[in-house]
Amino acid sequence: MNFQTFVKEFKQPFEQYMMEAVPDSSRTQLEASMRYSLEAGGKRLRPLILFAVLKAFNKPVEQAFPYGAALEMIHTYSLIHDDLPAMDDDDLRRGKPTNHIEYSEATAILAGDALLTKAFELMTQGDAEDAIKLKLIRALSQDSGHEGMVGGQQADMNGEHTSLTLKELEAIHARKTGKLIRFAFYAGGLLADVEKETVIDLEEMAYTLGLAYQVRDDILDVQGDEKSLGKRTGADAKLGKSTYPALLGLEEANEFFKEKLEKALTLNSQIKDREAVYDDELLASFIRSLEIEAAS
Amino acid sequence: MNFQTFVKEFKQPFEQYMMEAVPDSSRTQLEASMRYSLEAGGKRLRPLILFAVLKAFNKPVEQAFPYGAALEMIHTYSLIHDDLPAMDDDDLRRGKPTNHIEYSEATAILAGDALLTKAFELMTQGDAEDAIKLKLIRALSQDSGHEGMVGGQQADMNGEHTSLTLKELEAIHARKTGKLIRFAFYAGGLLADVEKETVIDLEEMAYTLGLAYQVRDDILDVQGDEKSLGKRTGADAKLGKSTYPALLGLEEANEFFKEKLEKALTLNSQIKDREAVYDDELLASFIRSLEIEAAS
Repeated sequence: MNFQTFVKEFKQPFEQYMMEAVPDSSRTQLEASMRYSLEAGGKRLRPLILFAVLKAFNKPVEQAFPYGAALEMIHTYSLIHDDLPAMDDDDLRRGKPTNHIEYSEATAILAGDALLTKAFELMTQGDAEDAIKLKLIRALSQDSGHEGMVGGQQADMNGEHTSLTLKELEAIHARKTGKLIRFAFYAGGLLADVEKETVIDLEEMAYTLGLAYQVRDDILDVQGDEKSLGKRTGADAKLGKSTYPALLGLEEANEFFKEKLEKALTLNSQIKDREAVYDDELLASFIRSLEIEAAS
Repeated sequence: MNFQTFVKEFKQPFEQYMMEAVPDSSRTQLEASMRYSLEAGGKRLRPLILFAVLKAFNKPVEQAFPYGAALEMIHTYSLIHDDLPAMDDDDLRRGKPTNHIEYSEATAILAGDALLTKAFELMTQGDAEDAIKLKLIRALSQDSGHEGMVGGQQADMNGEHTSLTLKELEAIHARKTGKLIRFAFYAGGLLADVEKETVIDLEEMAYTLGLAYQVRDDILDVQGDEKSLGKRTGADAKLGKSTYPALLGLEEANEFFKEKLEKALTLNSQIKDREAVYDDELLASFIRSLEIEAAS
C-alpha cells in the first residue's frame, strides 16, 4: 500500500476520533482553545507513522487511535507552549493566529497543560494488554519529558545566540523532535508485537527520519514561503539559532537530508528481509514523499 | 497512630524518594528548576493523605511512594504555572522567589510541563497490579485535567472581577483543589483494596476536606501573616476574587469551615464502623490538626 492512499483512508476517521475525545467547544473557553489547536490541522505525522507501522505488519489500525491521539495531543500542546511570548513568541501557526493570540496567554498555558494531561488518559484506553499500555505510557512520558522533548526545547532555547557544533545541534534535535517520532515507530512496533530486532530497526529509522525532518524544516525556514507553510519564515535567523543550513551551507544541508532519507530506506528494506509479512512499500513511499515535498 | 507521629516517620523518606526521581540539578537548568520547586517544601499534604489512608488500613506505605510523588509533582507544576505573570503573577511562594523569578518565564513553563510529564512516568512504577496502575493513571489524568484541576483554574480566572454565588464558588474549588485531594483518598482506598462503599466514604471525606481547606485558605488570605505563610496575603481581594469570607463574612466562613471538619469526622467514624481494621485515629487527628492550625 502507498502512503498517500493510506493517509486518505485513515486521517479523517482518526481526526474525528480525536476531536470526540475533547468535549464540544461550547462548554468552556478552555475546551474551545484545546479544540482550536487540535483542529488547526497539521499533517498528523506522528500518529500516522504509528498507524502505518501497524498497517505494514498487517495489524488493525483503529485499535491504536487512542495512542495516536495521545501522541498528537502532546505534539499540539508543545506547539502551543513553544509559541508563547516567553518562548518563541510566534503569532502565526498553520496559517491561523496562535492559541495565545486567539484566546489569551493564560488560557494557552492551561490548554497546553490540559492537552498534555488528557494524552495520558487516552493512553489507558483501547484494547492493548495492560502491560503494553504501561510500557507505552512510560515511554511516552520519557520521550516527551525532561529527558526528551521538553529537555530538547530547553536546550534549543539555551542555544539561541550561541554557536553550536553539528554534534550539539543533532543532540538537541534528537530530543526536541526526534523522541516523539521515535515513540511513533516504537509504539507501532510494540502494538504490532514484532521481534525485538525489528523494534530496534524501527527506532533507528525514527532517529534518521527525525534528523531528516529537522534539516528539512531548517531549509524551509530559509527557502520556504510563508503562505504555503502557514507560519513565519526566517524565524531561526531572527533568534540567532544554529541551524543545519547555517552550519553546513544550504547545498551540504540538502546533501545531509538526502543521505538520511537513503539510510531510512535501507533500514526499511532490512526489516522486509527479516519479516516477510512486512509491507515495505508503505513506509518507503512515506520516506520518498518527504523528498518530493522538500524539492517542490 | 497520631497524624503528627505518622508525618514524622514518613515525610522525610518520601521526600528523599521524590528528589531521587529527578536527577541532580547540576545537569541542566531545566532539572535544577524542577528540583527548586519540588524542594521548596510545603506540607506534602496530598501524598501524606494517600499514605495515611494506606497506613490506617494497615498496609505498607512505601509501595505507594511513586504514586505520592506523582501527585506532589502535579500539585507543584500547577503552582509553578499559576504563579506565572500571565496567571496570578506571584513573586513569592513558600517564602522563596517563585520559579519564574528564580529562573525565567520560559524555564518555569517548561519545568511545569516536565513535572507534569514525569508524574505519569512514576505512575507506571511501584508494585501495584497493572490494572490498578491503569485505573490510577486514568483517575489522576481526569482529576488534574480540563475536567478537574486545570478546568477549575480556568474557571477561577474567569471568575475574577465577577460576583459568584456560593454554589458557583464551591463548584470551582471542587475542581481546582478538591479533585487532587479526592485522588489522594481514592488512590489510598484503591491501593489498600477496601470495599467499594468505603472508597465512596473516603471520596466524600475528600470532598468535604477539600472545601474546608479552601475556606481556611481564604480566611488566612484575609487574616494571615505573610511571614508565617510564606506567600503574599490579600491577593484575592487584589484580583477581585470571590472568596468565602467575602461572600459569607468572616464569622460565618469560620462556622462553615468547622461544619465541614465535623462532617469529615463523622464520615471517618462511619468507615471505622464498617472496617474493624481501620485505625480511625490517624485521619481524625489529621482533621483536628487543620482546626488547630486555623485557630493559631
